[in-house]
Amino acid sequence: MSALPHPQIGALLAAIDGVPVTTEPSTVRKRSRDFFWYSPILDAQLRGKSADILVSPRDEGEVVRVAAACARLGVPITPRGAATGNYGQAVPLHGGVLLDMAGLKDIAWVRDGSVRCGPGLVMSELDAALAPHGLEQRMHPSTKRRATVGGFVAGGSGGIGSITYGGLREPGNILAARVITVEPEPRAIELRGDAAQKVNRAYGTTGIITALEFPLAPAWPWVDLIVAFDSFAEAMAFGHRAALADGITKKLLSPIAWPLPSHFAEVRPHCPEGKAVLIATVAKHSVDSFLALLGDAGAVTLERPLTDAPGQTPLYEYTWNHTTLQMLKADRGVTYLQCLFPHDAVLEKVAEMCALFPDELLGHCEFIRFGGRITASALPVIRYTTPERLSTIMAAHEAAGVMIADPHVYTLEDGSRHKRAEADQLGFKREVDPRGLLNPGKMRSYVPAAAAT
Amino acid sequence: MSALPHPQIGALLAAIDGVPVTTEPSTVRKRSRDFFWYSPILDAQLRGKSADILVSPRDEGEVVRVAAACARLGVPITPRGAATGNYGQAVPLHGGVLLDMAGLKDIAWVRDGSVRCGPGLVMSELDAALAPHGLEQRMHPSTKRRATVGGFVAGGSGGIGSITYGGLREPGNILAARVITVEPEPRAIELRGDAAQKVNRAYGTTGIITALEFPLAPAWPWVDLIVAFDSFAEAMAFGHRAALADGITKKLLSPIAWPLPSHFAEVRPHCPEGKAVLIATVAKHSVDSFLALLGDAGAVTLERPLTDAPGQTPLYEYTWNHTTLQMLKADRGVTYLQCLFPHDAVLEKVAEMCALFPDELLGHCEFIRFGGRITASALPVIRYTTPERLSTIMAAHEAAGVMIADPHVYTLEDGSRHKRAEADQLGFKREVDPRGLLNPGKMRSYVPAAAAT
Ligand SMILES: Cc1cc2nc3c(=O)[nH]c(=O)nc-3n(C[C@H](O)[C@H](O)[C@H](O)COP(=O)(O)OP(=O)(O)OC[C@H]3O[C@@H](n4cnc5c(N)ncnc54)[C@H](O)[C@@H]3O)c2cc1C
Ligand SMILES: Cc1cc2nc3c(=O)[nH]c(=O)nc-3n(C[C@H](O)[C@H](O)[C@H](O)COP(=O)(O)OP(=O)(O)OC[C@H]3O[C@@H](n4cnc5c(N)ncnc54)[C@H](O)[C@@H]3O)c2cc1C
Repeated sequence: MSALPHPQIGALLAAIDGVPVTTEPSTVRKRSRDFFWYSPILDAQLRGKSADILVSPRDEGEVVRVAAACARLGVPITPRGAATGNYGQAVPLHGGVLLDMAGLKDIAWVRDGSVRCGPGLVMSELDAALAPHGLEQRMHPSTKRRATVGGFVAGGSGGIGSITYGGLREPGNILAARVITVEPEPRAIELRGDAAQKVNRAYGTTGIITALEFPLAPAWPWVDLIVAFDSFAEAMAFGHRAALADGITKKLLSPIAWPLPSHFAEVRPHCPEGKAVLIATVAKHSVDSFLALLGDAGAVTLERPLTDAPGQTPLYEYTWNHTTLQMLKADRGVTYLQCLFPHDAVLEKVAEMCALFPDELLGHCEFIRFGGRITASALPVIRYTTPERLSTIMAAHEAAGVMIADPHVYTLEDGSRHKRAEADQLGFKREVDPRGLLNPGKMRSYVPAAAAT
Repeated sequence: MSALPHPQIGALLAAIDGVPVTTEPSTVRKRSRDFFWYSPILDAQLRGKSADILVSPRDEGEVVRVAAACARLGVPITPRGAATGNYGQAVPLHGGVLLDMAGLKDIAWVRDGSVRCGPGLVMSELDAALAPHGLEQRMHPSTKRRATVGGFVAGGSGGIGSITYGGLREPGNILAARVITVEPEPRAIELRGDAAQKVNRAYGTTGIITALEFPLAPAWPWVDLIVAFDSFAEAMAFGHRAALADGITKKLLSPIAWPLPSHFAEVRPHCPEGKAVLIATVAKHSVDSFLALLGDAGAVTLERPLTDAPGQTPLYEYTWNHTTLQMLKADRGVTYLQCLFPHDAVLEKVAEMCALFPDELLGHCEFIRFGGRITASALPVIRYTTPERLSTIMAAHEAAGVMIADPHVYTLEDGSRHKRAEADQLGFKREVDPRGLLNPGKMRSYVPAAAAT
């Protein structure tokens, strides 16, 4: 929580009269947190940070009123989706307004295999609405049942589906974004095509997203499978073969080393003691082909239809950063890394990293397409000792040609693989947020054009 | 035409009484030809070959009757779809029955994004029937408006759609095939999964296909585009970039060197003099992303909705082996090769081959996925002089690491990249066609178990 409420909060509340607001401190504090606590380093830095008030606009008009008032009064605004980010993306560093975007969840249209909708829509609700069209989102994070469309675009990178479509950043995965600027007279800017990348993974620093457009995928009937292997290397090898099989329709291939599956709650009985598993989600029409490819290389221990509906945990909630979560529930002494392996040496490099840190690193990958090539990203679980040791492990990865996006930092720059802000995003921020009021502190290379009074 | 009618034709006609038959010699001769004349070498070898009679079963029961009678009487059977093959696949080398499969065109079901249908269905008719389900075939040859589903599986390799799904041979692209054996008491064998590969590109030598099952793709609204480039190398480079862009939904990317586009009939006005073109088919929802990726690297000269319906030529009829056909219409002095480039040196190797034969080789590629990697297959047009020179050109490709499937031979073995019959197919043939009556001469390594009397 910021030491003192922002001096202009009173004036702001008056200026946005009629827009739903929560001022109750414990609620505001609770809503100001996300999943930064995965990282012991971020946990120490961000614990206690809070907005002064939570504002919940019901439509774009109300967003404009809040943006105008904040711009005039110099009050920071941090947009919030479902606050499931892992780097404190939605944590206000300097108090002010936490802007709850959940109210903006209209679907404007579905046509030609694409959709336009509000940013506050929960991703599983969007898929439920798309189902009658035979369509679904191309990709989603493993937090699909909580996360919002806008939070994914502004704070996420890829997920289930990226084995087919690559990450959000691949050209073509976002068609348009509409943003509201933070100025005394806010403007609405429609970013189409490439330009929409200006809001992608910008942590809400480059405008308040009020609508998004993206292309969709066919909503096949999907089947969730667990396959057990004697070793992580075997799970990786088969996962790689399946990833390369373009005739097999799939959206998830996650090899996970033992003992991680020992923490898999409901599906623990399907994870044999001591075995690595591959979690796979395959279109029903491709299951036989998947099993034929598998042959006797591994043993299928679970096969059931995928559903996002309540009552059963979809297997994707054991993959991506949920793998880490399942372990953290039992052992707060672990944390994780974010790795991208070179496509021409995936299996070798994964094995090399596992061998380098046999006691500290628990292998966990997701096969994805990246730049048109099949490779693996990884969120290995790390037994945490000190920040220095964590740095050593990350440096060893980079030295071996494995790219790291550090998940233990909260600025855009430090979290990117290239350690800098996208030039496009930095330039665009000048246009939409001259005073630097949007999620201040997250794009640290940004120097406000007109310093706030 | 075989010198003399098969001695048992009279007995056969009696045995299959009631099944529609054509004995009129000029019709039988005409229907016994395919597109082997693309190759001056095959043209010399196959010209004049003909069946004795054309038999047109209306259902599987009639196929069984024909198979039984032929087995008993030792009469060869060559199945025929639309006879659009390029290697004389459907040309009977030893007379006998030309088995017209066009009558078997029922759609048994469409479910879970897959279909089961008869082999005689014309591919564009199948897509028309799938359209109300929002589905279409994953891939089709450029002869889609004539070719049959069964002929594609038994005689083709891939085509429009292979940029996403790879070729027919990738695991998962064929789910099942039902075949009738050629025995006195024919059996129906259902080949599921991997086993269905026993009929894939086997030229009908491994059983008479009476049903096929395969997974489908979403039927997006598609847009056909022509993009002009100053050079073939530039068309290749952009095509490669687009091929690697997994966020852009596409089914065709064909770079074609000048002067090939000068023969492009109806779309000639959209092919600027002296320029290479890229023919692309992109989902409507991805067109903006495609154009953004293009930037000013090339100039779009045509953009229109794709339709298979009569009245307008879909652009795919200028790609794959239609590119060759467009040129052949004007100049019978050319022929072509079939190449597969190494995925890690596509652009370099294509440039190398063009440079090696500047006057004889006209560049033409299709980007495809092969074994999970983006690469290019190529059907370059060759100015033909002698068989020896053609061999030299092919040998130069192979020496440079470019795989060649020789299109100037009519046996399965010689036409394969590995110069041998698939072990699975050879073994299976023993089971289904002990006397070697199915399309005899096409699988030359097959020695009948029981020699025909
Ligand atoms: C268990 C677990 C698993 C995860 N798995 C994945 C995964 O598979 N892939 C992945 O990419 N991520 C993953 N994440 C991270 C996160 O869940 C996703 O990125 C998710 O999409 C974030 O959505 P959200 O609605 O919670 O966004 P929030 O956390 O609320 O916000 C994310 C960022 O977007 C900004 N933002 C939100 N709405 C707007 C708006 N309308 N305009 C402008 N800015 C806005 C916020 O300010 C913040 O900076 C995981 C996290 C956890 C805890
Ligand atoms: C201009 C042109 C362009 C082409 N482009 C492509 C392309 O893009 N990709 C490609 O792969 N091919 C291409 N081809 C080759 C050919 O058109 C296709 O492979 C097509 O799918 C063949 O189908 P069809 O019905 O004409 O088969 P046919 O030529 O009639 O038969 C092909 C083979 O299948 C066998 N057969 C047919 N039906 C059955 C059955 N029911 N049971 C058992 N065996 C059977 C026949 O005996 C024959 O050996 C092209 C040819 C031309 C002339």
